[in-house]
This record gives sequence, structure tokens and C-alpha cells, in this order.
Amino acid sequence: MRIFGRGVRSADGYSRYFAAGRHSGKRIEVGDLIYFDNAATTYPKPQSVLAAVSSAPRLYGANPGRAGHKMAFETANQVYAAREAVSELFDLGAPERVIFTKNCTEALNDVIKGLARPGGHFVCSDLEHNAVARPLQALKMQNICDWSMAHVGESTEETLRNFKNRLRKNTIAIICTGASNVFGTAPPIRELSGLAHENGVLLVVDAAQTAGILPMHMREYGIDFLCAPGHKGLYGPMGTGILLCNSDKPLRTIMEGGTGTLSAQLAQPDDYPERLESGTLNVPGILGLAAGIRFVSDRGEARIYRHEMQQIRYVYDALRHMRNIELYTDLDAPAVQFVPLLSFNVRGKHSEETAQLLSYDGIAVRAGLHCAGLAHKAYHTEETGTVRICPSVFTAKRDVNSLLNSVFKIAKAV
Amino acid sequence: MRIFGRGVRSADGYSRYFAAGRHSGKRIEVGDLIYFDNAATTYPKPQSVLAAVSSAPRLYGANPGRAGHKMAFETANQVYAAREAVSELFDLGAPERVIFTKNCTEALNDVIKGLARPGGHFVCSDLEHNAVARPLQALKMQNICDWSMAHVGESTEETLRNFKNRLRKNTIAIICTGASNVFGTAPPIRELSGLAHENGVLLVVDAAQTAGILPMHMREYGIDFLCAPGHKGLYGPMGTGILLCNSDKPLRTIMEGGTGTLSAQLAQPDDYPERLESGTLNVPGILGLAAGIRFVSDRGEARIYRHEMQQIRYVYDALRHMRNIELYTDLDAPAVQFVPLLSFNVRGKHSEETAQLLSYDGIAVRAGLHCAGLAHKAYHTEETGTVRICPSVFTAKRDVNSLLNSVFKIAKAV
Repeated sequence: MRIFGRGVRSADGYSRYFAAGRHSGKRIEVGDLIYFDNAATTYPKPQSVLAAVSSAPRLYGANPGRAGHKMAFETANQVYAAREAVSELFDLGAPERVIFTKNCTEALNDVIKGLARPGGHFVCSDLEHNAVARPLQALKMQNICDWSMAHVGESTEETLRNFKNRLRKNTIAIICTGASNVFGTAPPIRELSGLAHENGVLLVVDAAQTAGILPMHMREYGIDFLCAPGHKGLYGPMGTGILLCNSDKPLRTIMEGGTGTLSAQLAQPDDYPERLESGTLNVPGILGLAAGIRFVSDRGEARIYRHEMQQIRYVYDALRHMRNIELYTDLDAPAVQFVPLLSFNVRGKHSEETAQLLSYDGIAVRAGLHCAGLAHKAYHTEETGTVRICPSVFTAKRDVNSLLNSVFKIAKAV
Repeated sequence: MRIFGRGVRSADGYSRYFAAGRHSGKRIEVGDLIYFDNAATTYPKPQSVLAAVSSAPRLYGANPGRAGHKMAFETANQVYAAREAVSELFDLGAPERVIFTKNCTEALNDVIKGLARPGGHFVCSDLEHNAVARPLQALKMQNICDWSMAHVGESTEETLRNFKNRLRKNTIAIICTGASNVFGTAPPIRELSGLAHENGVLLVVDAAQTAGILPMHMREYGIDFLCAPGHKGLYGPMGTGILLCNSDKPLRTIMEGGTGTLSAQLAQPDDYPERLESGTLNVPGILGLAAGIRFVSDRGEARIYRHEMQQIRYVYDALRHMRNIELYTDLDAPAVQFVPLLSFNVRGKHSEETAQLLSYDGIAVRAGLHCAGLAHKAYHTEETGTVRICPSVFTAKRDVNSLLNSVFKIAKAV
């Protein structure tokens, strides 16, 4: 259980947040920070993203779906251009089927509950984030749908077999993470797409840790629905997420409201994107996200992947030879693909303690369960959690060296 | 029906958006714009809000609920300070019961569906926005809850009588707008609170058009749940909304996911705010909203109301004496309270046409149904829609004069 942040109360009712956060010292100077918490949100953001977020409320300050005046049109144009950029990066071929959400979690709830039918069933991997597991469990608790979990194995064949064994006659969709947010393991999405469609089942991908890093060509791969945050590998600001609909399967709505269309009608409109975008959009966020996507497209996902993988490989090779370090993934496993992030622990220390010690050295990592209890169960790390390292396109060799020095110091003292 | 913006397809499948938006001319210069569309979103935003939005991704760029490092704490502190500012402005007395949402619509869906129980019933006013009416209608279509509408009359007594007549044994809550987003009419919220509680029913207020303008002291007035956008009278950026919970009545969730708390548990945590805040928060938006709320608190809602009412009164008095103008509200009605916005039409013209002509003169208003079909039915304006005028704290006399000159020109030419 995570104990810090967001005013979380501990069992005795005393807010650890106040103890740990409120009085925790001076303002952070950006230069102080060696940031490896990019799987939670990327930092820093590209200059172009900062500029877009900053100028949006001045240049595109009208409500894009709400009026016929010039600034409203200009704002709507910018939002539409953002849809086009997303559609292109993910090979969706349909900008109007790009839904802007507040985060990846909303997108996943939209699609999971949008597809749910009484008596239905879902299959997901055992590496899923709570953004998948908790909506599925909520449907189960309400006796609407059941769900099963398939183990992501050490080979594509094993994984496919596991998923196949979980399919039932009433299975609606396979929901699978593009990569574990704790261990970096990337299940075989293209092959799962084949399995799903052979069995008349939809494929939903949680691309939280792959968007901007591992290409997910929706039409080519046959991904029916894809959910992603805007603020991780796509380098947009926090407060942004996307849901991409490559399937004609209609989604029920979990929210309804004003769409700026068919206003005299009490039923929610059927057309995308309005159907799933009630109320005012996060214009500064969306324009920032568009700038982030352009940043990613200009560099190319392959180049970003290579750079980050180089950093993580360097960390991995060093940690593998360090005493008192537990590693949980085998980057050299022949049949498994990884995204550039990894988890470790210093032997005998809770992950939160290690993270705290790293923080004293100005190094930002995340510890605990990373909102992914299932994945920790799969890797038997639910007691201590893990310390997670995730670089970004901006991570330099000197950052990695600082991290390794600090980990070495902690591990030596055990 | 609104026909422009956000890529809305007309019946023949041709996008009006492309016709009207995409090629509609040059970049807007801010100086060109005389903005009366503040009921859709306020423009411009205060300098302090622009500064907060702009600096947030640099200074507070970590995920606040996701890690134990310094910048994550600092960010969590800022978010918590925003909760405190909201709690204070609305007299909630409980920062942890301030839920940040993406917009007012999400907040309303959270509370309406959170309270819904099979066989239940809601009563709302006949001035409600689609953000209330559509979720209620969705519950009805799913055979979960029924709903009735009460007419907001010309006196408090009449309105109370109408609401009382609609109450049933199974009524869960009265849901009422703080003020109509089309006509400015403000139903008697304090008295409705009395009626609700005498009858063992909850009161939910949609403060979309009152937040920052008409005080809504939740504890004093006895408002159980209040929903508001952050980007209208609170002067925050688009992409922000709030749900304030002054009642202990538990809300079911419409979204579940990672909360950074109790991560090993598949059930959504019970504690506020985490229960209703799954996934990453819109930090730049929330910090911008906090700056907006400080701006409003510093000035005082009463002073803002006075300034804007002066402008709208000036518009009203001029339009009342202009030929070919239809007005729909009587600002001098003794027993009715208004917020500073009004609707009108030029006789014989569709509201969209008038808005278009005003736009040529650089004046931004909103026309059509304003996502509030019910209110237009109540006022018999569903055929033409209305042109809506809404000032902000930044509206000056010269803006009002430009507007009136332009309206006069259009009305004279009829």
C-alpha cells in the first residue's frame, strides 16, 4: 500500500500526507531533480508542449463546440488538428473516432463499460493495471459481467494458449496491456489480435506504457479499441487521455450531457466523437497533447525506443552485477519483448524505503504497487512492492550514472 | 440544432465544420474580439491563471498521487491547496470532499448515477441543461430510475409548490440548476433545500452559471452535492470541474481505476477524494483553477455580480427600447432572481443568423439551444433558439456599446 501523497489517511486517521508532504522542505529546483518516474508522467515536457499549453488559453480560449464565432471556430480547428495527429500516429484513419478523455482510466472505463452486456465475460492479462482490473471487478460485483485472467508466459505460444483457454462462449473482448507498467513486459498484441478475431471477440489495448514508444498500428494490427494517456510517452500535459475506436461495435455511454449537437433531443447522440465527449473539452491539454504527438512523430517512435532502451539496458547490466539487488525481469529472455522500464529492490528493504533514500539524493522514482496489484501477484512482489525506473527521451547517461551511484550506496549499506 | 463546430456532420454527411470552420479565415487577434460568450467559458482569463497554467508543467510536473519523491509531494501540496480554496469558497469545510473532474458534466454524472438506485426517482427543474437531463433520461431508458420536471414559476411559492407536487415516495433527490444558462433565471435554492430536507430528499445543485457569481454556501444553505465547471465564473482553464460532497450518502462510482491507494485491492476505495478520482489528475488545470478561485475570492463574488449585472442591465434597458428585438426575461420581475446573462432574438431571424452577423463585427456570442432543450421548451424558443449575451468581470462599457451598435444595425435592417 502506498502511504504518501494526495492526503491519504493512514489507519489511525492521521494524514501521512501532512507529515510527509506538507512540511517536506523547500521548493524543488528543476536542476536538482534526476527524474526516473516517467512511467507515472513524463518530465520534463518538450518546449513545444509547454508553449502550446501556455498559449492555448490566450489564442484558443473559446469553447470549441459551443458557438459560431471566430475564436470558437479557430479553437475547433485546433482540436480537430489534434484528432488528426492522434489518428495518424495510431494508424486509425478516422480523426472523428479519436475521443479525448481526461486520462487513460476514463478511456478504459468508457470502453469496458461501453461494451459490457448482462451475462458477458472479459479476458484480461495478469499484468493489468487497476484501471482495467477495477472496472472489471465493479461489473462483476454488480452481477453484470464476469472476467478471467490469463497469464502472460515466457513465449508467445504459451501466452496465446493461456488466453485461448480463458475464452468462453460469452466472452466480449480480450483486454490487454501493451506492456506492464511495473515490469515492462510487452504481451504479443498482434498475435492476440489474431486470436481474438478468430474467436469472434474484440481486442482492447491499454497502451498506457507503449503509446509513443512501441508502435500500435490499429488498422494493421487489428486493434478494435485503444486507450492511452496523453501525458506519458506522448509528452502531453497531465489531464489528457485518448480512446480510439477502430470498431463499429457501439459503446454504451457512462456519461451523457451537452454535446453541442442535437440539443433538443434527450438521448445522447450516436455520432463520434460527441457521443463520448459530453461537456467542455480540455482545450489547453489537447493542444499540448497535439504538440507532444508532433514531437514524437518528428523523432519517430523507433528512435525514442532505441534511446530509452539503451538507458534501461545500461541500468539493467549494472544492477545485475550489483550485490543485494533483486531484479524481476530478464531483458535477455529470447521470446519476450520489453518496453524501457524495470523494477528492482534492494534486498531486505521495502521499496518505499529505497525510494525515500533515492529521493534524498535528488532522484525521483516510484515505489510500491504502482496501482497494479495483479502484476505484483504474478511476480510475487506484493509484499515489498518494487522500485521502478523509467527513462524518457530526455534521460542522459549522467542521470543514469547518478542513479546507479545512489543505488550502489544504498545496497552496499544493507 | 447547432450546426457548426467540432466536425458535426449534417444530414447529408457533409461536414459543416469543414465548410464553416476550417476555411473561415485568418487567425483571431485578441484585440479584434468583443467577447460575450462567457457562459460557455470565460475569456480572457486573469493573468494569474495564465501564469499558473503555464508554470505548472515546469514547477509541478510530477504525478501527485503516484510517488514519494520531492516534486510529487510539492505537486500534491499544490493540489491540496486547490482543494482548500474550493472548500472555502463554497463553505464546504472539508477539502477532501472536493472532487476534481474534467468538467461540470462529469461531476453531474458522478452524482446522479452515484445516487441512482433501481426503482428510484429524481425531480429536476424545467430549466436544466442536457448535462442533467441526458443522464436522467439515460437512467430512465435503462429502466433504473424515473424522473419528473418541475416548472420554475414567477414566485418562490409557486416554484416550491411545483417541486413539492413532483415529489414521490421513491424520490432520491431534487436536482436544480443554480441559474438557467439560457435565461439567467435563478431558482430559489435555499428554499428548495428546505423543501428537500423536510421530505427526506437530497438536494443537488448544478452551479454551472452561478459559481463565482452567486454565493452557494453549502453548509449554510444545506446543499448536499454541488457541481460546477472550473472554467466559467471561477476563471480556471477549460478541462476543469468540481464535485463537492456535503452529504454522507455514499456515491456509487461510474469509473474505477488506480487511485494510488489500497492498490492490492480490486474494489474501488471508499475514501474521498480517491474514490471518485481514478487515474491521473489534470494538474495544470487544477492549479489554474486554484488561481482563478483566488482571483474570485480577492474580488468577492458580490462585487463581481454587481459589475456584471450593471453591464447586463445596460444591455437589457437598451434592447428593451430597440425595435424588432424579442427579449425573454423580465429583469424587473419582483420575485425572481437573475444571474447576469440574457437571451434575445432579432424578430424574423434565426438566432444562428444573428450570431453570424455579430461575428462579422468581431462580437462573440452564442446562439442556438445552448445544450438546454428543456429551457427553450419552457420559454417557447425551441424553433429559433436564442442569442445569448453573458459578460464577465472584464467586460467594459465600450464592449457593451459595440454590441448594442451592432445589434441595432442588424435589427434596423429587418
